[in-house]
Amino acid sequence: MDLVTDLRALLGPDRVKSHLLERQVYAKDAGLVKGPVDVVVLPETTSEVVEVVRIARRHGLPVIPRGAGTGLAGGAVPIDAGVVVALTRLNQIEHVDYDSAMAWVGPGVINQDLSTTTRPHGYHYAPDPSSQSVCTIGGNVATNAGGLHCVAEGTTLAHVLGVELVTAEGDVLMLGGEAPDQPGLDLRAVVVGSEGTLGIVTRVLVRLIQNPPTARTLLLSFGTIADAAGAVSATIAAGIIPSALEMMDQVCVNAVERFVHAGFPLDCAAVLLVEVTGLEEAVDAEAATIADLASRHGATDVRVTADPTEAGLWWKGRKSAFGAVAQMAPDYYLHDTVVPRSKLVEVVTATYDIAEKYGITMMNVFHAGDGNLHPLMAFDAEEPGMLDKVHAAGAEIIEASIAAGGSLSGEHGIGLEKRDYMGLVFSEVDLDAQARLQEAFDPDAVFNPDKVLPVGSRCIDITLSA
Amino acid sequence: MDLVTDLRALLGPDRVKSHLLERQVYAKDAGLVKGPVDVVVLPETTSEVVEVVRIARRHGLPVIPRGAGTGLAGGAVPIDAGVVVALTRLNQIEHVDYDSAMAWVGPGVINQDLSTTTRPHGYHYAPDPSSQSVCTIGGNVATNAGGLHCVAEGTTLAHVLGVELVTAEGDVLMLGGEAPDQPGLDLRAVVVGSEGTLGIVTRVLVRLIQNPPTARTLLLSFGTIADAAGAVSATIAAGIIPSALEMMDQVCVNAVERFVHAGFPLDCAAVLLVEVTGLEEAVDAEAATIADLASRHGATDVRVTADPTEAGLWWKGRKSAFGAVAQMAPDYYLHDTVVPRSKLVEVVTATYDIAEKYGITMMNVFHAGDGNLHPLMAFDAEEPGMLDKVHAAGAEIIEASIAAGGSLSGEHGIGLEKRDYMGLVFSEVDLDAQARLQEAFDPDAVFNPDKVLPVGSRCIDITLSA
Repeated sequence: MDLVTDLRALLGPDRVKSHLLERQVYAKDAGLVKGPVDVVVLPETTSEVVEVVRIARRHGLPVIPRGAGTGLAGGAVPIDAGVVVALTRLNQIEHVDYDSAMAWVGPGVINQDLSTTTRPHGYHYAPDPSSQSVCTIGGNVATNAGGLHCVAEGTTLAHVLGVELVTAEGDVLMLGGEAPDQPGLDLRAVVVGSEGTLGIVTRVLVRLIQNPPTARTLLLSFGTIADAAGAVSATIAAGIIPSALEMMDQVCVNAVERFVHAGFPLDCAAVLLVEVTGLEEAVDAEAATIADLASRHGATDVRVTADPTEAGLWWKGRKSAFGAVAQMAPDYYLHDTVVPRSKLVEVVTATYDIAEKYGITMMNVFHAGDGNLHPLMAFDAEEPGMLDKVHAAGAEIIEASIAAGGSLSGEHGIGLEKRDYMGLVFSEVDLDAQARLQEAFDPDAVFNPDKVLPVGSRCIDITLSA
Repeated sequence: MDLVTDLRALLGPDRVKSHLLERQVYAKDAGLVKGPVDVVVLPETTSEVVEVVRIARRHGLPVIPRGAGTGLAGGAVPIDAGVVVALTRLNQIEHVDYDSAMAWVGPGVINQDLSTTTRPHGYHYAPDPSSQSVCTIGGNVATNAGGLHCVAEGTTLAHVLGVELVTAEGDVLMLGGEAPDQPGLDLRAVVVGSEGTLGIVTRVLVRLIQNPPTARTLLLSFGTIADAAGAVSATIAAGIIPSALEMMDQVCVNAVERFVHAGFPLDCAAVLLVEVTGLEEAVDAEAATIADLASRHGATDVRVTADPTEAGLWWKGRKSAFGAVAQMAPDYYLHDTVVPRSKLVEVVTATYDIAEKYGITMMNVFHAGDGNLHPLMAFDAEEPGMLDKVHAAGAEIIEASIAAGGSLSGEHGIGLEKRDYMGLVFSEVDLDAQARLQEAFDPDAVFNPDKVLPVGSRCIDITLSA
């Protein structure tokens, strides 16, 4: 039987998409790369996923797992061909255990829906990428996603206690789990961030975080990015760990203000948004200290609020940055490098120089507490030669970040887009060790082949092709 | 040439120990198991470690990495034979980068020495097992060690940014590293907690934590363990995350008081030691809230101190618990299971019943915030039949912990002692996945063979022997 017939026999006609238009929808993520899709399936259970993998293997096709498709690095885009397994229908919040502060959820659960469900009970899910209203927990696991609150709480790895994984052989593994400290080799940690190259995650055990008793939010304006960075360092040096610590540059603040009308100051070079959480007296003391340190580091405007509505509008501004930029130009390209916090000013300045050299509009919005930069280029892809310029500028930004002791990606993943930059940060034997691990899980390269690691990462491949 | 001659040619006579008495010193750790040692070597550099591995392999012998030997689960004890590689001389604090809050250290650096070095500069290393004055960073990495401050800061995994690993093939891998978010598969996370079964860690990049501006410590006494556990839950429910949260039962408090004379109350069923850190106003508010909650949960005595000397004496008491017990009986056996915090009282009560059944003195001292129990049995091993009773009681404690949704080990590792209990928490396919990973790193089982995973964990082994 042919592939589509086999899959329809398993899932019925509605959950197997083979029409050209349907396949095109799944041929790309939110980034720039497109790939060829043979068929798209929408399983609803772990055992359906197991069977889909068996059918794909029988037909000699790779399997490409996919969440909401909000990725930017091509991680969910097939390269040559493949069965795209969209996991959006494994979207049950199966069981929430408030006593132990954990929940079993399907990989298709929308990030924000999980917090919306648990917040009234006093808990929430901490990692909150800007795309949280649409992205899935499964996609977050694949990329080890970060977010505004990861400066204090850590990225997805710190919030995933266990995963159920369907392997190339059709086994269903349980990696990690409910017991507080899992013995043995920590395979859970390898699956988080593996971008669908080791198997398909079909259930996720997440840690829930208690809602803080109260919060204060500060909106701080500065005449230079260096002043803002100085206030960040001084805050951390004072022994305060803010629950969120974000920076937006002038272009970004102006774009955002036109979008949300939150009263952001339009004439400053940089705005810091800082949140502290805890007991009433504690957050008052911390907010006062931060305000004082900001003033001493040249803040031109200092606002502090205890009002959740006002704070909510400020944060909405921050989270809308990537939407707001759509008003500036028809296309945008978002980078995601990480640099040591001490190198923030140097690398941000370099990104402006690079953008100017290529004549591209650039804005910066980033997790200042983590050193996770998001230089965003706004452009019109129809303009001849523009896409080439954008790619060239992107490559220079990556190189500048790595030269400053930074890394390729803070939270968006490597996928296809950054795969061939991996040699900049890993030696041959380091890449070989990762390739070996991939091979141990998936010897026939069934899952998302040729992603994350450059082709030829196994030393043995190199020898053979030499 | 023979093994010892080969090794002496590399390391000289002093760093190759082959005398029976010397070999006996390295034949056990701080637990109960002994094993046969062929030879002990004390390399001082990564390249010496590489050469030692080559020599051992040439002679067909396994390699057993070892730190200070403070482990309790037999992780550093050879099973059949082996070259013990003591890493205590790779003890350089090579480079501390205070700007980026990280340090490169040798695996032989004593845990406490690292904090002693960095504390005057405003930083410390957070994981602080009770053995911190003697145990090594390398041993901490091997077992993913915890400690008093891991309730807020996480265990060793959260504090190791990178490791240099010597593989069975003599390659030197760099897993993780200085750049803030490392892309690719997180092999660093697998090596942490792998108990020397994947390779030899020869350098460790650790994260440093800023010293808190100030601290308050509370000593809270309760008439029942249930009351103390209630105060713990209420504190956490109030949105306070203490930096340390420890419980000692009456037997423990009495043993400790005889040892350190800190003025501990002797007539209560349980004592909680709680530390909060942060800005002055914040810790005052938090300490007042905790004191109030403790009183409402039946605390019979509430003391709060801001005096580092007084607090230091209280903490010294907690850290001396295992030394204090030596006054009670010639031998002790310490367990290390983890249970969901909601099951603490139930499982602690069960440990008393089990000890009573076997007529063994039992005390409990534990990380109450983490649910990490340390039931400690004091006994005289010379008493006929006693060791069998201790082992039988230990097995029942493990079973009771797992039945309550807990796990085998919080921080001491699996080693040899708990290896054969792994089937209680992992399925056949889960163990096979771990065995595959081990095989991908170390196909000839050179490093610490037959530890952590039960013999026959590879499904293929099972098939062949069936």
